[in-house]
Amino acid sequence: MIPDLQDAQRLDAEDPLAPFRDRFDLPPGVLYLDGNSLGALPSATPARLAEVMRQEWGQGLIRSWNTADWIGAPQRVGGKIARLIGAQADEVIVADSTSVNLFKLLSAGLTAAPGRRVILSETGNFPTDLYIAQGIAAMDPSVSVRALPRDEIIAAAGPETIVMLTHVHYKTGQRYDLRAVTQAVQARGGMILWDLSHSAGAVALELSAAGVDLAVGCGYKYLNGGPGAPAFLYVARRHQATLRSPLSGWMGHAAPFAFSDDYAPAPDLKRFLCGTPPILSLAALECGVDLFLEADMTAVTEKSQRLCDLFITWVEAHCAGHGLTLLTPRHPAARGSHVSFAHPDGYAVMQALIARGVIGDFRDPDAMRFGFTPLYLGYVDVWRAVQALKDILTSRAWDDPRYAARAAVT
Amino acid sequence: MIPDLQDAQRLDAEDPLAPFRDRFDLPPGVLYLDGNSLGALPSATPARLAEVMRQEWGQGLIRSWNTADWIGAPQRVGGKIARLIGAQADEVIVADSTSVNLFKLLSAGLTAAPGRRVILSETGNFPTDLYIAQGIAAMDPSVSVRALPRDEIIAAAGPETIVMLTHVHYKTGQRYDLRAVTQAVQARGGMILWDLSHSAGAVALELSAAGVDLAVGCGYKYLNGGPGAPAFLYVARRHQATLRSPLSGWMGHAAPFAFSDDYAPAPDLKRFLCGTPPILSLAALECGVDLFLEADMTAVTEKSQRLCDLFITWVEAHCAGHGLTLLTPRHPAARGSHVSFAHPDGYAVMQALIARGVIGDFRDPDAMRFGFTPLYLGYVDVWRAVQALKDILTSRAWDDPRYAARAAVT
Repeated sequence: MIPDLQDAQRLDAEDPLAPFRDRFDLPPGVLYLDGNSLGALPSATPARLAEVMRQEWGQGLIRSWNTADWIGAPQRVGGKIARLIGAQADEVIVADSTSVNLFKLLSAGLTAAPGRRVILSETGNFPTDLYIAQGIAAMDPSVSVRALPRDEIIAAAGPETIVMLTHVHYKTGQRYDLRAVTQAVQARGGMILWDLSHSAGAVALELSAAGVDLAVGCGYKYLNGGPGAPAFLYVARRHQATLRSPLSGWMGHAAPFAFSDDYAPAPDLKRFLCGTPPILSLAALECGVDLFLEADMTAVTEKSQRLCDLFITWVEAHCAGHGLTLLTPRHPAARGSHVSFAHPDGYAVMQALIARGVIGDFRDPDAMRFGFTPLYLGYVDVWRAVQALKDILTSRAWDDPRYAARAAVT
Repeated sequence: MIPDLQDAQRLDAEDPLAPFRDRFDLPPGVLYLDGNSLGALPSATPARLAEVMRQEWGQGLIRSWNTADWIGAPQRVGGKIARLIGAQADEVIVADSTSVNLFKLLSAGLTAAPGRRVILSETGNFPTDLYIAQGIAAMDPSVSVRALPRDEIIAAAGPETIVMLTHVHYKTGQRYDLRAVTQAVQARGGMILWDLSHSAGAVALELSAAGVDLAVGCGYKYLNGGPGAPAFLYVARRHQATLRSPLSGWMGHAAPFAFSDDYAPAPDLKRFLCGTPPILSLAALECGVDLFLEADMTAVTEKSQRLCDLFITWVEAHCAGHGLTLLTPRHPAARGSHVSFAHPDGYAVMQALIARGVIGDFRDPDAMRFGFTPLYLGYVDVWRAVQALKDILTSRAWDDPRYAARAAVT
């Protein structure tokens, strides 16, 4: 039997994560299903940033590098993210953007083994991952980039490859088996680099247990760090002494304030820092991460799965016959925390939804994405989103010229 | 005749930039002479960041990439910085850190001409500049780094070199003649990359008129963008179509939201973007830059020179016989906006000054640095700073064990 609104209400009433909804500031009348692209604003963030600006920067000025431990922020926030992804505190650090961190770790991984010259990835991976790999190959003609369909990747892995995969696919939501793929790649002599941008804060992760070599991830999606928040990177302890960042900036130096002319990498993960850490952005990211430290990641994962399950169930039950095709795996272990449906007029349908206050997004050519963030969405929200979608499809409200115009950012 | 306190008071009364002092929030009782390391907090910044957080992020959510023009922020703020450094609006963009931008432009400059394989710089340049160059050479054995004393650099420049120089030296405050060095390097077939970290917002700059090839600069020093603010980069129009960033992230793509598998650089300076722009930090930087757009850069430069002149004059008159040695050129055109004095116990002297509320900083082995920021310092401030230094030297107040202990960040 298909659940109904009463079931959703009961699930909300029983939801141990429901109190987290009040820890976010969300606009009234909006159902926000795009936290997989930009997380919502934690209520604590504006006050914390005001304190960092007025007290630490304004009053403390340069002294705050020491007195407010600005200098330790990349490791401190990295150590907190480590707890969310099943890593050791000294294996994660916050730095730069996901793209820049991909460059660092891919270059470092390729350089560490003389015969490792191939970056192996998936066709249709998130573009920046492929672009960064292509940039490395453009700099160094001995490096090549191979992108293959998902089911051909493991067979192509070998000692000459670093395999770069996005754990949860940005468009379809497909999720790799982190442990199985890591071990299969390593059994063939390859090195693995996971992009956790659509996983961290969305699904339970066990990087240490899976023996992952390298990983990067995004701060502004499920971690709610704010638009363009700094990213994080993970390097397994066993690799930290040997891998060297090509972006050998002063903050990665063993003694940055000795001001010597010659670079010497820090003995630990700090070697993957480059320039001066962005303190305001780091403080905002820390507010987002701190909320997750109060939540049980198992409960987060379970709720994510149930929200997605109900969305799929209800869309298929209530919106049948309107040309929607599920792009996301049905099995919870095979997907992340967003669900995509293809529709021939997906862009316009999504614009009509947004005009109704149901905010998802769209990815070419036809994918409507709906993200389900367990900390600030409930089961009745899912019900309402599906009813809005049903209304728009039934009434063909999307078939309006104002919904066809593309914006700069989709 | 040596000026006195009355002269300082008169200069303050006549200072056309004096009203800017009230546009900054500074702690009471503090003389802040370290704006060359971390600029002060503009009064407008906290309210603007609150608006970005509560309205644009909290209420606008993902829509603000379009509706608040987040996507255009790197170019918009870059275009404003262009006005401060004598460049065209489309020649400057805000991105990443100074270190990361050095990597991009050095790599791009080396790759653009097959025979250009030497990064030529100055011994004792700001460390991250040399470190980044060394990182590039570590990745590509055909590239070498040569660091020479300042007076040997031009003679060593040739078609095989990209010359990377810091316009105003971080320690001594020595300033290169931007136009003369640019033209001398180019006349020898070399390419020039200027690091403007200690120049932008401190001295008048004419990048276009000088024919500069490439430049980078810092957002958190004189531009008052906040701790770890994003940096900027400049590429002369004539180079924009040919230079390619090695950090080919999605924001540098010609069509980032087409999500294609293959990288194609944007036709313009956007190709030097990499990851998602850091919106909160960009908004803070814009507040700092906007203040400069209200000020006359000629007046800023003149006041900077006069503040530094008076500081040197008064220190030499009032603190004679205490072992201070001027490290900074006396001629205003040969220095930036900070003044350094060597002292054998410079670290302890500076700590004693800081304990008295006169905040400068120290650079090994013996340099005490004093930065003079015309927007929030006056002439009487300089007088008071010198009197505090005189008291500390005369009383030997610095000779106290608590002033000898080194902090993590100096």
